[in-house]
This record gives sequence, structure tokens and C-alpha cells, in this order.
Amino acid sequence: MEQTRLQKQMDFIVEMDKTKQIFRQTFLADGSRKENDAEHAWHLVLMAYLLREYAEQEVDITKTMLMVLIHDLVEIDAGDTYAYDEKGNLDKREREEKAADRIFPILPTDQAEELRNLWEEFEANQTKEAKFAHTLDNLQPLLLNHASNGKSWREHQVTLDKVLERNQHTKEGSNVLWEYAKQCIEKNVEAGNIRLVNIPKE
Amino acid sequence: MEQTRLQKQMDFIVEMDKTKQIFRQTFLADGSRKENDAEHAWHLVLMAYLLREYAEQEVDITKTMLMVLIHDLVEIDAGDTYAYDEKGNLDKREREEKAADRIFPILPTDQAEELRNLWEEFEANQTKEAKFAHTLDNLQPLLLNHASNGKSWREHQVTLDKVLERNQHTKEGSNVLWEYAKQCIEKNVEAGNIRLVNIPKE
Repeated sequence: MEQTRLQKQMDFIVEMDKTKQIFRQTFLADGSRKENDAEHAWHLVLMAYLLREYAEQEVDITKTMLMVLIHDLVEIDAGDTYAYDEKGNLDKREREEKAADRIFPILPTDQAEELRNLWEEFEANQTKEAKFAHTLDNLQPLLLNHASNGKSWREHQVTLDKVLERNQHTKEGSNVLWEYAKQCIEKNVEAGNIRLVNIPKE
Repeated sequence: MEQTRLQKQMDFIVEMDKTKQIFRQTFLADGSRKENDAEHAWHLVLMAYLLREYAEQEVDITKTMLMVLIHDLVEIDAGDTYAYDEKGNLDKREREEKAADRIFPILPTDQAEELRNLWEEFEANQTKEAKFAHTLDNLQPLLLNHASNGKSWREHQVTLDKVLERNQHTKEGSNVLWEYAKQCIEKNVEAGNIRLVNIPKE
């Protein structure tokens, strides 16, 4: 019985290795290549712990660390949907739910339910932990984009209105971090990395 | 004042991005490429949470998650030292201490001390959290090596005595996980992925 439970846990742990192969649109700080979901989640766990003092409401830090750790696992089936991909975002929820239905039940029932619930809580973005997690999830690519001189923004010709739309809830998790993010955005508008208006293609 | 503290934290967070560029000798489960320190640490945090019930003594899970999250940060300066690299392991401690002296003080003093102490605790391997963290740190590459049909073991012609020497303390963190690890090792000896004796080069 114990072996069965342990084997399910091990199967899940090895299956989740695929997270390292799901690439995002954000470049590493030095601009050398794009980062993957495992690297992104690792960075968010570090940020959650070090920046928890700025959460708008005091968060359960273990829960927050776990939430950001697993928030993108569904992408091993559903793929990464770029924040500024309007078409991809139309069926994102459907694709990710299907993935969640397959992925989490690899675990023993109690842990499958716990992680599924935690992922749903992140998605719903209503609790203090989910709001802080979203703030970090929005801030981390801003930090990397700023460090790489806006490489991903320039590649995708991202405009300020889109960045602000994406970040409309960032301050709900942390006003201090949103103020920092705004400075970062402003510098990149000044540098021409974020466009003020969309230039129509010829 | 707050801005200075926050800027130090952000500087550290961006500097730690380099963790994504430190590659280990372990291949991903599908054998397609080697994994890096950020991916490895991400995997260990997931394992710490899901496998905590098997820790030999009940662990503080937040502390354990944070410990495995940061246990390899020093490698951004010191580089990864392969477990079976005898020469590299001679000055490993010296290189890593020098790295720790540079890296952690990027943070505000309180957080620099906290993370440095946690890293030292991991290295000393005396507390229940450090022992469980080492068990996970040893188990994770075994799982990936097994999944990739022993690719890294074969590449380095690793022998059973070296694997057992490397794992001499694995059971101290979790006897259940060590029993699982032993089965994994046995299967790879049978498959010829781990050699019984070293074959001298011509």
C-alpha cells in the first residue's frame, strides 16, 4: 500500500520534469535565451520568500511558495500562453482544465486534491496568497525584461496599454511592488523598449 | 530607506538569475539535455513538499523548501562540482565559501544572514531539515538517471561503489526513500548503466 502511494508520488515527480521543456517568451536577464517554466517557478518561490514583507495582507508563506511552485504545471499539456497572445488566451482556460484533469490525479488522491485546489485558488485570484502570487508572476518578467534591455518587449512590439492591462491587478497583491514595477515600466517606455502606440505593419 | 532595502532585494533576485546558466551532469528525464541548478532546485522544492511524510524526523517544511531552493546558489560563482569529480571536490568548500561571501551580502543584512546560515546548515548536514534536504538532493538525480536509462552514469562510467559512497548518508534523512533509491540503483546495475567494476582505459 505504501509502495503504491510512493510510486504515484514518484511518477508525478518524474512526469513534472517536462516543466523544464515549456519555454516562455521572457529572456534570461542576460538576454542569451528564453526561460522555461521550471526556472520561472523557481524564481517566483525565491521572490515570494524574500519579498513577503511587501504583501498587501500578511500571507501564509508556505502556501504562497507552494502555489507559485506549481502554478504553471498544467502547461506541460496546455503549453505556455503568452500574456499578449489574444487568440491563445481565448481557449487558455479550457486547455488548462483538461491538463489539470490529467496531471494532478497522477498523485495519491489527497495530494491530487490539494494541488488542484491550490491551482484553482491561484487561477481565481481572490485570496491574499493568490493576489500576492499574481503580483510576483507579473513582476518577475518585468525584472527580466528590464535586465535584458526589453528584448522580449521589442521582439513582440509590445505597447504600453497592453503592459498596463496585463498589470491591472498587480497592485492588489502589493502596492510597494507595483510602485517598483511602474518605475521599471517607465524606464522602458523612455528607452523605447515598450512602445506608446502600435505601428501598423506595412 | 525602504527603497534601498527593496533595491538590494531586487538586485539579489536579478543576480540569482545566473543559477539558470549553471549546468549539472544530470540529464532531463527524456535524456534530451542536461539540467541546470534552477531546474534542479525547483524539482527539490516540489519533492520536499510531496515527500515530507517520509522524513526520518518531522521537518519544518517551509525551512526545508527554502533550504533546497537556495542550496546551490553559491555555484553561480563556484560552478557545479560533479559528485564523482574527485579533483573538483578537493577545493569545493573553499570556492563555495568565497562565493557565499560575495553573493549573500547583496541582500539586506538580516536576509543575508538568514540565507547564509541556512546554506551553512545544509552544508553541515546535522539537523533534520539538512538531512532530509540531502536525501532529496541525492534522490533527484537517481530518479532522472533512471528515467533517462542511466545516460549520465554511462557517460561518466560511474561504478556502484561510487554511487553507494555518494549515498552513504541518504538513509539518515529518510529510510523509506533510501529503500526506494536502492531499488533504482539495483535496476541500473542490472541494466549495465552502473558498472560493478571500473574498466581501466587502454
